[in-house]
Amino acid sequence: MKDFVIIGHKALTSGDFSLNDLPGSAGRMDILCRCVNSALFLSHGMRRDVNVHLVLQGEPDPAKVVRFNGEKLKYLNPDERSSGSLIKKALEKDAIEYETQSTPGVYIRRAGLEQLLNEFSEAGRDIYYLKEDGEDIREYSELNSDAVFILGDHMGVTEEEEVMIDRVAKCTLNIGPISLHSDHCMIIIHNELDMREA
Amino acid sequence: MKDFVIIGHKALTSGDFSLNDLPGSAGRMDILCRCVNSALFLSHGMRRDVNVHLVLQGEPDPAKVVRFNGEKLKYLNPDERSSGSLIKKALEKDAIEYETQSTPGVYIRRAGLEQLLNEFSEAGRDIYYLKEDGEDIREYSELNSDAVFILGDHMGVTEEEEVMIDRVAKCTLNIGPISLHSDHCMIIIHNELDMREA
Ligand SMILES: C[S@@+](CC[C@H](N)C(=O)[O-])C[C@H]1O[C@@H](n2cnc3c(N)ncnc32)[C@H](O)[C@@H]1O
Ligand SMILES: C[S@@+](CC[C@H](N)C(=O)[O-])C[C@H]1O[C@@H](n2cnc3c(N)ncnc32)[C@H](O)[C@@H]1O
Repeated sequence: MKDFVIIGHKALTSGDFSLNDLPGSAGRMDILCRCVNSALFLSHGMRRDVNVHLVLQGEPDPAKVVRFNGEKLKYLNPDERSSGSLIKKALEKDAIEYETQSTPGVYIRRAGLEQLLNEFSEAGRDIYYLKEDGEDIREYSELNSDAVFILGDHMGVTEEEEVMIDRVAKCTLNIGPISLHSDHCMIIIHNELDMREA
Repeated sequence: MKDFVIIGHKALTSGDFSLNDLPGSAGRMDILCRCVNSALFLSHGMRRDVNVHLVLQGEPDPAKVVRFNGEKLKYLNPDERSSGSLIKKALEKDAIEYETQSTPGVYIRRAGLEQLLNEFSEAGRDIYYLKEDGEDIREYSELNSDAVFILGDHMGVTEEEEVMIDRVAKCTLNIGPISLHSDHCMIIIHNELDMREA
């Protein structure tokens, strides 16, 4: 399993937003929608061995985690509005300590970045922090396909979050010489893993 | 300059579609919208040395080419609806033989794939056809940053189109062992060029 974690600093924590304005009405939810697409879609089908965890930290009721599971997922199309509508449906459910499935393969619970990191760490997973000044992913030989990748949104990663991540991360990885959008970084991570697995 | 050409086999050739349903009402225009994003966006800013050419071959008035020019571009945000709305504005203009600018950095004209390919070929540009069975882009040493990249959409590239492309292409390139969406392929092409230019 590959797990992608993306932090949505302003992403709304209620379903009270418009699919016609994902950037404005939903706290840059468009970024998270594109991350869902990048993490999961192949030309003809879905990457079944992937989870994407959206850490929603915006108003009115932070923090919540929405998880897309490639194995169980249904009703997802590649356009932003499609993932946006599944996120909206998840946010219309009550978020409790345990995951509730809102639609096939989409789950919501009350949790934040720290808890998610602790769970991955306790499960013994290799956790990688994606950052512009990290080690070159192409040169990093230990990368395996059972890894967890942590990425920031348009605001990057705060200092506090970075302290939490550094505590559990195996190392910091760079995907190229330029700072890119998080969804673009995911494509490059997948490509690197695809090349190694081929 | 880097030029990306993406063929939209069903993409509408009038502005008569709904931004609320880019996949259905506009002939999978969502694919082209994501290609615009992938070709042009950096984390903070735009790739100024890039053109994206959308070859629209759908009803009611094919073919037309909409060009996004990174150097002159304004009013583009990363979400699909934003590029969709600039494409719609372009399609609301009359398409004639010469380019008409619809909004800053977005141009429309009446042209098709063959003409576009001939223009690039006459300008002496290196043209690359992106295809699953091509040469590994990482191993291809001659790649330069003044290249033209031709990609298909969800329907791939037809046999007829392939004949036209093969006539002018320098070679066929592969970006990884799995067939991916066109917008994802563009990210990997950029990454490869970024690594070489760094
Ligand atoms: C839009 S970038 C953040 C931009 C910038 N760091 C900031 O704080 O405004 C979103 C995320 O993508 C990842 N990222 C972007 N470019 C990267 C690169 N070249 N290498 C590794 N990770 C990258 C990082 O996780 C980053 O937090
Ligand atoms: C969604 S794919 C097309 C899928 C499939 N070839 C078909 O005909 O249904 C869209 C385009 O991306 C490009 N592409 C996809 N995967 C690729 C790969 N691994 N290497 C090179 N190009 C690729 C090709 O240009 C292709 O036409």
